[in-house]
This record gives sequence, C-alpha cells and structure tokens, in this order.
Amino acid sequence: MLAVHLESGRVEVRKQPLPRLPEGFAKIRMLAAGICSTDLELQRGYYGFRGTPGHEFVGEVVEAEDKNWIGQRVAGEINLACHHCEWCARGLERHCPNRTVLGIVKHPGAFREFLTLPVANLHRVPKSIPTEHAVFIEPVAAACEILDQVRIPKGRSVAVLGDGKLGLLIAQVLRAHEADVHLFGHHRRRIGRIVSETKILRRSFPIVVDATGSPEGLKSAITMCEPRGTVVMKSTVHGLVPMDTAPAIVNEITLIGSRCGRFEPAIKLLATGKVKVAEIISEEFSLNRAPEAFARAASKGVLKVLLRPPV
Amino acid sequence: MLAVHLESGRVEVRKQPLPRLPEGFAKIRMLAAGICSTDLELQRGYYGFRGTPGHEFVGEVVEAEDKNWIGQRVAGEINLACHHCEWCARGLERHCPNRTVLGIVKHPGAFREFLTLPVANLHRVPKSIPTEHAVFIEPVAAACEILDQVRIPKGRSVAVLGDGKLGLLIAQVLRAHEADVHLFGHHRRRIGRIVSETKILRRSFPIVVDATGSPEGLKSAITMCEPRGTVVMKSTVHGLVPMDTAPAIVNEITLIGSRCGRFEPAIKLLATGKVKVAEIISEEFSLNRAPEAFARAASKGVLKVLLRPPV
Repeated sequence: MLAVHLESGRVEVRKQPLPRLPEGFAKIRMLAAGICSTDLELQRGYYGFRGTPGHEFVGEVVEAEDKNWIGQRVAGEINLACHHCEWCARGLERHCPNRTVLGIVKHPGAFREFLTLPVANLHRVPKSIPTEHAVFIEPVAAACEILDQVRIPKGRSVAVLGDGKLGLLIAQVLRAHEADVHLFGHHRRRIGRIVSETKILRRSFPIVVDATGSPEGLKSAITMCEPRGTVVMKSTVHGLVPMDTAPAIVNEITLIGSRCGRFEPAIKLLATGKVKVAEIISEEFSLNRAPEAFARAASKGVLKVLLRPPV
Repeated sequence: MLAVHLESGRVEVRKQPLPRLPEGFAKIRMLAAGICSTDLELQRGYYGFRGTPGHEFVGEVVEAEDKNWIGQRVAGEINLACHHCEWCARGLERHCPNRTVLGIVKHPGAFREFLTLPVANLHRVPKSIPTEHAVFIEPVAAACEILDQVRIPKGRSVAVLGDGKLGLLIAQVLRAHEADVHLFGHHRRRIGRIVSETKILRRSFPIVVDATGSPEGLKSAITMCEPRGTVVMKSTVHGLVPMDTAPAIVNEITLIGSRCGRFEPAIKLLATGKVKVAEIISEEFSLNRAPEAFARAASKGVLKVLLRPPV
C-alpha cells in the first residue's frame, strides 16, 4: 500500500506492507484525511517526528474481531491510552502518560491506504455526514473541548483570534453554543453570520480563544482579554513563544491550554449542520500527490487540504 | 520630609514638601515599609517608573476627616479605584482601569515619611501584630489571593517554586489552609515544617505556584504540573518570558495570573501566628539609607529588607 512518510522536512510517498493487526484493533481503509497545522509542524520537526502523519480521517473498517464493525464508516479518537494507569482510571485517557497518538506519537497516522486503531477509539459516522465533511470530526471535537473546559453562558461575548481553518471551526462551535462570537483575522472571512475583523480591542472580551497558530497570537489574546477573563490557548506553535507575563498577572487572566476533545458533540454538530465545513475545504489531492498537498496546505490563505486514496 | 526617589535606575533620598490631603484621604506617618521584588523591578525601569515607590507598609494615621482614625496603626490596600466604572460596580476595584496604585502607578508610594491613601483603603492593624510584621500584610494578602482564585481542597499537594520572600509566605499561607505544600528553591530554606528542595519532578503536582521571580520559573512550573493541573503565576518578571506553550496545551494546563489580594485573611493569618515572618526579615535601614537598603535587597539570598523612618 502507499503511505506518506515525513523525514527531515521532506514529504515522500512510500510503498509499505499492510499494517499488522494487534488484538482489539481494527484495520481501516482510509476514505479521506485532512492536513492540519500540526502535520505542517511535524514536517518542520516538531516532536522530532519521523514517519507517517495524519490524525484527521474518515475510513471504512475492513478487518476487526467484532464483525459488526466491518463495512462501517468511522472516525477515530487519536489518543491510544494504556488503560492501566491512574490517568486512565480517572477517565483521562487523553492524558495517559503511556499513550501513543495517531500520526503524532509512535503510532503511524492516517495518511496511508490502510491504518489501524483500537476498536475502542472508533465512532460510527452517521449517513448525514458526507465523507469529506467527516474528516472534520476530529478538529471540531478539539473545538468542542473548549466548552468542556470553560463555562460559556448563552450570549457571553467571545473573541476568536485567527480566521484559519481551526478558528473558523471554533467560531461556529461557539456560535452553535449561542455565544456572541467575534472572529478576528487577516483574511476577512465570512462563515455563516460571522465575519472576521482585524481590529485589536484592549481588555474587551471575557473570553478570548487564540487559534492564530502564530507566536504573536497569545500576546494579542492577553491584550484583548478583560481582567479576570480567560484566554484559551489553541495554537500549536513550535518552539518558544515570547510572552509578556506582566499583563496576564496584573489583570489576573486565566490561560487554559486546550487540545483534543470528545467526538460525540462534534459528530452531532456536523450531523445537524450547525457547523458547516464545505467552505473550509480548499482542495483535494490523491495520496500519491501528498508532497503537492503538503505544499498547498502550507500556502498562505489556504484552508483545509484533503487527501484521498489513490485512484 | 524625606522621600525615596527612583529615576533611571538610581535610588535617591530627597527632601519634599508634606503631601496635600485630598477629600476622603488620610495622611499616614510611615512606621515601617518593605522593599519588594516589584520595587526592584521598578528601579530597573518596569512600567517606566519614576518617583517614590513603596506599597508594603504600616503607618499611623495623623490626619483624616473622621477623627476616629487618628492615632490608629494601619496597613492600606494599594489600588486606588475610581468607584465609578463598571469594574468598580462589579466589586473588582483592584481591576479598575482608572486606578492608580500606591508606589507603582501615579500615586507616590510609602517610602517617605508621610504618605496618603483613601480612608476606604485602610485596615486597622491589631495589637497582636508587631509593626515590623505588619509590613507583610500586603504580600501575605497577595499570597491569600491564590485561595480566592483556585479551589485547593485540604491535603491537596501543591508545589511552590521559589524559596524567596514571596515563596516563603505563599508556602505558609497554603500550609495554613492545610494543603500538602512542597517548597522548591535553591536556598534549602526551612519555614516551620516546610523545607525547600531543589529537584524538579515532571507532571507531579495538580497545583504549582511560580514565585521564583525568574523567567525560567514558568517553564519549570509547567513541567512539574500534572495534565489538567493549575499553574499560578506569581512572578513579576520584566520583559518577555520565553514560554514553550506546547506542553501547556498538550497537557491542558490552566495558568492563572495572580496579583493583589484582600487584606482581611492576611491580617488574620499574621494575628494568629499561622504565618510567621520574623525569619523572613533580613535587615532594617533608616529611610535616609534607602540606596544601601535597595542594594542589599537586590543581593542574592537576601529576604525582606525594611525601611524605617529616619531617627
């Protein structure tokens, strides 16, 4: 089968044997996968990564012990927990210190024709979500994680910084939650009734989400946040971010790191059309054109780039 | 009267006229004042400061409209709020955007023979607190602020990074709150039953307080914090702090900026002897020896340096 291989900044497509199937795992034929900013960071050497990336995917189960899974269209939670440690016992499998992570930490990712995941990680994708939209279940779940971490009452005004792909998803998720969402970014993008602005307003929002993906995003977020307000850190930035801690301390701001989320609310939001992703897809490439796809995904102004199985 | 004057890094003692007394203000004869790390930062140019610093003090009221205050020994809250804005209306006077701050922002500080503060900011100091200990009411209040921001159940283990003067106060305040306090620092200091250690333990504490006053403190705090744990930022560091946001995001850590606190719990802790400060006082200087006092306060390993009225 074909698999994308990242090494020292290079993107290659390699022939590989089919993956072996450990107990409790399913073999999944990739139907579509999305290139995320984290994948571009992995390409640049984040985590010293080397191997097959890809953690946003939808696929069809082709092999599993429980035959009911065969033929099912699935998305999969990306953290492979040990299920034996105190973190797993506390229900915090996503923070299991022994975990591997699909396409990120010691488990080859979804940018290949067939991938494997524990059956416990799989979620059936309802018919109402087209395959190319189901790729967004994972990033929408990451956006939903904010709602599991921060109490956001109806009508509360929230600034989302960054009108890139993650920012557009977060804005919609918070809008669906009936927050008063203000989107900020350089692209003047429109998503539903939300239009992104560029102006930075000092201490104006009780909640600010940094989804800029840039080292300057956190600084702007702290500037825009009200005293005693909350800044949600959603930007994966490689390396050190220069942070002026003084305003965060003086204004007693709470900064919350936010990562992966539960899939259930994400599937619901996509199934009911409350989060729309059609406009966020910039382009689709066949897996064997992965180097082009990565280059395209890294281009300015481009949103989600999808990979499809080779035809 | 004599007043300390900071300008371009220099500490001078100047003769000044007695301060005029606006309506609602009290004139206070300084009895003792403490040099805090913030004062040393002000000396280095933090906030572009120029003038009389000093915000940790105890004094005797010598003039006030309400004659009951005259002769009272007092400490004073350092934020002078406008009492007219939405923040003041919400009870968040300490975050009033129009506020001045004693010895920090546009209100001359306590390092002078006579200072002024609104009567509303004053707290009587009980007899059981000696004058030199009452100087610590303000920093102990800042330590107590942590308990107003973070729920810390009895027995919860908390790491306090930094065994300098603020770290030692925070450790005691949290110990009095019956947290399981672990103090970390380079000085191997003992305060009550708490002895500081140097070892850094990865993801070991649900709550970590950074009171190192150093740019590296935040990084260590994030390293030592458990996933989904809380890091309290108590270090005032001038300029940009290089922060690796990735572990904070991956481990979904909450970082909370923490500044001034309510005086009531601090006065109680000092009055009941639950927080002991005698050992934290390194040296006392007369106000006219302020340049020496500042130099001493900035020396390695020195704890609190007090200023006293000139004899």
